[in-house]
Amino acid sequence: MNAVGLIGFAFVGAAKAIEERYDVFGVTVVGVMTALGGGTTRDLLLNRVPNSLQSPGEVGLSLLGVTAAVVFVHYLDDGHQHPVVLTADAIGLAAFSTTGALLAHQAGLPVFAVVALATVNAAGGGAISDLLLGRTPFILREDFYASCAVIGGLTFWALAQMDVTVGLASTGCALAVLAARGLGLGREWSLPTVQVRERHDTR
Amino acid sequence: MNAVGLIGFAFVGAAKAIEERYDVFGVTVVGVMTALGGGTTRDLLLNRVPNSLQSPGEVGLSLLGVTAAVVFVHYLDDGHQHPVVLTADAIGLAAFSTTGALLAHQAGLPVFAVVALATVNAAGGGAISDLLLGRTPFILREDFYASCAVIGGLTFWALAQMDVTVGLASTGCALAVLAARGLGLGREWSLPTVQVRERHDTR
Amino acid sequence: MNAVGLIGFAFVGAAKAIEERYDVFGVTVVGVMTALGGGTTRDLLLNRVPNSLQSPGEVGLSLLGVTAAVVFVHYLDDGHQHPVVLTADAIGLAAFSTTGALLAHQAGLPVFAVVALATVNAAGGGAISDLLLGRTPFILREDFYASCAVIGGLTFWALAQMDVTVGLASTGCALAVLAARGLGLGREWSLPTVQVRERHDTR
Repeated sequence: MNAVGLIGFAFVGAAKAIEERYDVFGVTVVGVMTALGGGTTRDLLLNRVPNSLQSPGEVGLSLLGVTAAVVFVHYLDDGHQHPVVLTADAIGLAAFSTTGALLAHQAGLPVFAVVALATVNAAGGGAISDLLLGRTPFILREDFYASCAVIGGLTFWALAQMDVTVGLASTGCALAVLAARGLGLGREWSLPTVQVRERHDTR
Repeated sequence: MNAVGLIGFAFVGAAKAIEERYDVFGVTVVGVMTALGGGTTRDLLLNRVPNSLQSPGEVGLSLLGVTAAVVFVHYLDDGHQHPVVLTADAIGLAAFSTTGALLAHQAGLPVFAVVALATVNAAGGGAISDLLLGRTPFILREDFYASCAVIGGLTFWALAQMDVTVGLASTGCALAVLAARGLGLGREWSLPTVQVRERHDTR
Repeated sequence: MNAVGLIGFAFVGAAKAIEERYDVFGVTVVGVMTALGGGTTRDLLLNRVPNSLQSPGEVGLSLLGVTAAVVFVHYLDDGHQHPVVLTADAIGLAAFSTTGALLAHQAGLPVFAVVALATVNAAGGGAISDLLLGRTPFILREDFYASCAVIGGLTFWALAQMDVTVGLASTGCALAVLAARGLGLGREWSLPTVQVRERHDTR
């Protein structure tokens, strides 16, 4: 799952940088940052040397995703909305949320940290690459995306409170993220803004 | 003071995100980052696991500030300019500057680090949330705001050089920040730009 | 070389902030961040307390560069394109790439980390200050700049694989960066975008 996620995230990031007409170096950096930025930020917060600097495998998979974006961008109009890409992205969202929640749990941190690190690990790379592209992070503005990682983190924490094994809590977290993302995409969910809430209030 | 500051900072951040029509998740993230982002950056620079990940109390106070912004934004036109909010924000500025200066001093770091960590702790959260909102950090562009933290850090360092107790240096720092911010707000101080200086020069 | 680089980087960063009409505090912060931000990010990734917080000398040189920008901006139309500034900047690019590659090598990290830390150390400060100025990082969009650091990192790694001394690998890295930057500037090299590649493909 992790491998699919790295390729998927790097593809999405590189495709956005190609759209913005970044040069080959920029496309590579944004793609790799989308794939590895969330995990790197998680490791900084956990006060460890980032795993991404030590695992050539993860870097290789990210570069594979960037290459795929460069090759396929000629054949696809809106590459990052293709079902294969959306699926790979959702798998990455689930895998990275689970890793973040698991490492926070193993570090003995409380519920906020489990949820925060699940979210940072899953959505941090996308947020960083949006900033690098001069966009406001899409996860804050629209869509039911980072919320899936929040749901996953809460699921992990709730299962861990029930004294299930770490493996079971991880599986539950990954499934919760996949289910939330699948439902969210299928039904075009998005979170309300405060203005929407206000309109409902005053009706 | 810390509690008031966390609520005040979260309120200001959330109010800005509501203005920008971010969704409920985005408003929460920006509000919490405004309150906790400065301290988190400070802990990263001091090479520690961020305190914010380990203290449910601080998270709870931040969420309280976000909730207050969501509730009161209907009743106030320009909520983050309300005297109560400005006061809470100034108290946070003083409390966070003091914490940053104190921790840098206790880590045995020199004067630049004392000033830098006071400033990062106090103004870093606001700068991060401005970036997340797609704005350039307001602290760099106008207003007599981060300069108060610089003054506080210098005050702490000067007092510590005179071998006073840490408690006294902290009190002096907090009072210096409050005085500078109060004067700055009252007299609408702002720092000159280089262009302004240039006009004076050539007159 | 390091001293020249710190002054040159701080000059370039401060000159950009003056252009954007930031106040004196903002100009100082952006200038200092341009000079010290890359090394600070490198130290965060290596899980160390940033050197910049512990070395008053580096801070002093950065402030010297900021002061130079404030003074000379009146006499120069496009200060950061002046040959003296371009030379100081290129020297900084070489010195900082070398430091990043060396520290990654000494930490026993693999080739990706050597290249990544050379690049972050050399180009990270400029990227951070572009974000603070509300611009997309120039290194991602155009020009043959960060690519020089990549070439330097690869050179260091290749020489280290041949079991030469660390001093020789460092010299090779610095010379490779200087040569690449000099050639790039002289011949106005820039990396292709994917769209350019596409046009060539379909011809």
